[in-house]
Amino acid sequence: MAVLPRALQNLIDELGKLPGVGPRTAERYAYSLLKRNSEVSKSIAASLEELHSGVKYCPKTFALIEADQTISLLYSDPSRDKKTVVVVEEPLDVVAIERTGEFKGTYHVLGGTLSPIDGIGPEQIRIEELVERIKDDKVKEVILATNASVEGESTALFVQKQIQKDGLVISRLARGLPVGVDLEYADQITIGRALEGRQLL
Amino acid sequence: MAVLPRALQNLIDELGKLPGVGPRTAERYAYSLLKRNSEVSKSIAASLEELHSGVKYCPKTFALIEADQTISLLYSDPSRDKKTVVVVEEPLDVVAIERTGEFKGTYHVLGGTLSPIDGIGPEQIRIEELVERIKDDKVKEVILATNASVEGESTALFVQKQIQKDGLVISRLARGLPVGVDLEYADQITIGRALEGRQLL
Repeated sequence: MAVLPRALQNLIDELGKLPGVGPRTAERYAYSLLKRNSEVSKSIAASLEELHSGVKYCPKTFALIEADQTISLLYSDPSRDKKTVVVVEEPLDVVAIERTGEFKGTYHVLGGTLSPIDGIGPEQIRIEELVERIKDDKVKEVILATNASVEGESTALFVQKQIQKDGLVISRLARGLPVGVDLEYADQITIGRALEGRQLL
Repeated sequence: MAVLPRALQNLIDELGKLPGVGPRTAERYAYSLLKRNSEVSKSIAASLEELHSGVKYCPKTFALIEADQTISLLYSDPSRDKKTVVVVEEPLDVVAIERTGEFKGTYHVLGGTLSPIDGIGPEQIRIEELVERIKDDKVKEVILATNASVEGESTALFVQKQIQKDGLVISRLARGLPVGVDLEYADQITIGRALEGRQLL
């Protein structure tokens, strides 16, 4: 005999599809929604319904854009420097860099990292499209901003080899101590990178 | 300028309504759904839409039941002993106890704990209904299974005072070492309770 009403058990099972959400967390989410006004559940449901139809990929930068846009505003905006391109793994990385307010160039979203174990090779991520764009837009600098993980590093290395040519500056985001972190709490690899990349005063 | 498409930002904001979900977690949930087939989002949405209409409270035990049921099957089932009642805080606690497969009595869900700070007094939780039921069903034993928290303990104490009378056995779930936990990792209060409640061999 099922102990929970079918509608509640169903929602628990469905919420378990979210990344990192196990049965206990799903139970907590579902029960908290049940205790609140049904309008809360309905408005989450409405936003889920509209997700895929409201979003598409920019055909130039592969960032996420409104379904009715033709190209990313971060590319079409005339104040953005098309000769400087930051290469990131995922669309949300664009948001992270935009939040700094310090970058006035444009983006290229790879859509993942190389991962031979998962069968993700150079054809599965958008490297060829980057090579094309460097040619078309006469790009002068590419900043590789993939994650500081093993996959991110090896993808950056691979991309670098594919795009390098005379006159193109290729850089990688600095590695070092995160702002606000005490030296004693930083891991040894981070401190090693911070030493390597030390800057003259 | 909004960096993310409205539909995605909207879903991130909506998922942020779940308990303990901050903006970063909501972003991760929303983006993982965007990368998956739209059917996944739609099926989560459907289960959210049906949540409130598919669930109601049992008028006898206050456990959660199907909207088309009149009373909890854990109560109406003739094999369940109506003279033994476990008192729990929340409907999901019923599930936790049912999972043990060791309890054949019935339940009473208080629907919370006493919490003067939050303005939750005896009238806000279902103590009067418990008193009524003890009378109506000629209950012989009440097992107080509120949480082992300060609120749970004080609620148990309060309920005990309200219901105690001659011929009614009132007990509390045993406190002690959780199964599988090493003594050295248990906290001092738990060990104290385990000593107090030691059992003769």
